[in-house]
Amino acid sequence: MTKTNQLGTTNPIIQAPMAGGITTTELVTAVSNAGSLGMIGAGYMRAEDVKNQIKEVKKQSEAPFGVNFFVPQPFQTDEKAVKKMKKQLQPYYDKFQINSDEVAVPTAEAVYEKYEAQIEAAIQEKVAVCSFTFGVPEQSKVEDLQANGIITIGTATTLEEAKTIEARGMDAVVLQGSEAGGHRGSFIEAPSPSIGLMSLLTQTADAISIPVIASGGIMDQRGIEAVLALGASFVQLGTAFLLTEESGAHPLHKKKILETPGEYTVVTNVFSGKKARGIHNKFIDEMELADVSLPYPVLNSLTQPIRKEAKQVNDIEMMSLWAGQGTLLGKEQSAAAFIHQLISR
Amino acid sequence: MTKTNQLGTTNPIIQAPMAGGITTTELVTAVSNAGSLGMIGAGYMRAEDVKNQIKEVKKQSEAPFGVNFFVPQPFQTDEKAVKKMKKQLQPYYDKFQINSDEVAVPTAEAVYEKYEAQIEAAIQEKVAVCSFTFGVPEQSKVEDLQANGIITIGTATTLEEAKTIEARGMDAVVLQGSEAGGHRGSFIEAPSPSIGLMSLLTQTADAISIPVIASGGIMDQRGIEAVLALGASFVQLGTAFLLTEESGAHPLHKKKILETPGEYTVVTNVFSGKKARGIHNKFIDEMELADVSLPYPVLNSLTQPIRKEAKQVNDIEMMSLWAGQGTLLGKEQSAAAFIHQLISR
Repeated sequence: MTKTNQLGTTNPIIQAPMAGGITTTELVTAVSNAGSLGMIGAGYMRAEDVKNQIKEVKKQSEAPFGVNFFVPQPFQTDEKAVKKMKKQLQPYYDKFQINSDEVAVPTAEAVYEKYEAQIEAAIQEKVAVCSFTFGVPEQSKVEDLQANGIITIGTATTLEEAKTIEARGMDAVVLQGSEAGGHRGSFIEAPSPSIGLMSLLTQTADAISIPVIASGGIMDQRGIEAVLALGASFVQLGTAFLLTEESGAHPLHKKKILETPGEYTVVTNVFSGKKARGIHNKFIDEMELADVSLPYPVLNSLTQPIRKEAKQVNDIEMMSLWAGQGTLLGKEQSAAAFIHQLISR
Repeated sequence: MTKTNQLGTTNPIIQAPMAGGITTTELVTAVSNAGSLGMIGAGYMRAEDVKNQIKEVKKQSEAPFGVNFFVPQPFQTDEKAVKKMKKQLQPYYDKFQINSDEVAVPTAEAVYEKYEAQIEAAIQEKVAVCSFTFGVPEQSKVEDLQANGIITIGTATTLEEAKTIEARGMDAVVLQGSEAGGHRGSFIEAPSPSIGLMSLLTQTADAISIPVIASGGIMDQRGIEAVLALGASFVQLGTAFLLTEESGAHPLHKKKILETPGEYTVVTNVFSGKKARGIHNKFIDEMELADVSLPYPVLNSLTQPIRKEAKQVNDIEMMSLWAGQGTLLGKEQSAAAFIHQLISR
């Protein structure tokens, strides 16, 4: 029998929970069956879809896997601001024949209800791990999950956030270095919550006792060995798994990552209202000149149909091309082959 | 006899050339005598002062050391903009009883002449190493230095910059990660020339053949071992040496670094007109609301008297508190004790 670690897996690799259709059942299953931790990025999913995907993964794998949730933050929907933004987005709506009247914005209540239902699904299905981003779940939720034998993981971008997650009694913390692709998990204001992984990791590992999971720009065995030597217990790779054959990322998104140096990834809030790192394209360029002040998830809902249609017609200038700064270190291959390469000596 | 490396030193550590009075003769000497490479930050110095400091160091050490230069970039001095900025700075001038009429701005010609004279001093004194930041020296200068037996080192913040430095025939390149304190060495425009050291290092080491020197947030043995494993031949530490007893940094600057988490360091151009990382303070806060569009070194010359006077009266809210993101990993101690700790197993 192979020895397992605290997560119940046989190697220290976690596939980052990338929301928006990237973490297909095929990807999560392949990762978990290879001895790593597969993660479903549930953020944007309806609770019933989360439940269904969990069931699907279970059919194909007996290995542990996890689900990631977006912790809702209070937000206001300013109808006037929404109207103004829709007007700014009108050229894009026109381009893809989207009826702007049908583009809806959720209420804070609906977002919170969905979050609770998602967690309930994970508890009912007894997944091995629940991780959280954009905030810290309430104490009662952490305790509820743990009482059901579920390992809870928070996401921190600063030392203070990591300490907050430890104080909440969570079992481990993902440290998201500034190199990371996709959304920043920041939830406590700071002058610059964007810290290079090496600096964030070393200082945090010195200061907290729960296991730390390093993430941000890690793409290969060298990166894994470096962060384990610096005090990480586990590593979480996003962009590297986005590039695998099983991921649901658009083929042009994958192709673009492999040919783009890291300095062409930028942190922007124009897609969702929350900061995220992706490859610079025309949509970012044009929107950064506009006045984008709507919060997440309001802006996200307004731009979502544009990105969806852009994928349909292979228009990479209008997609969100999330990617970390390790772009050129990537390779398109199967998840199993990739993991095998990462753990072989 | 101890074995030496390509730089003629016995260990892979370089003390970053921090301009503005940090790299005292005592610091450079102590570092070089401990088997690392001491560096004089000549950027703001008059050529005759550079020459004198080189002579002073030579008196106290036979070990190799180096000098760093700021490669001048063309700039325009818009008299109207200078006048406007002086008006904005007037409250600060008043605070420290500075006569704004006496605050002078150099011409591009004067800056270039100084740069040439600085290099001439280094050649006459045959220092072991000349490093450059803010640009790549002309081919003829690189050749001239090399013909005099001087090792030439460039500074890059992106893969493209590193390739440019290699193509210019320079001997090695410092890779400045986004974690680094002080001025960004960037000289080629890119959407985001601010890359975490791990990502920058691995991708660049894969792509170029000259030795790479890792810098940015490295503060201790763990960091050094990590970057050497990732492909660096040498490491350059700035903030860590700024904290040593021999450095010329203001005592309150040192104290502040040791008590400030990395997320309180920000990248700002309000001090000099060029982006640099330092601890967030009142001057940054207030000036970022102002319209700061003057280029380096024009703005630098206008704020320099303020920072100088602030040091005199221990006003840390008006100093430039340069620091990398590894702040809390630092310790105030002698340079020799620090280096001993870094290289002992």
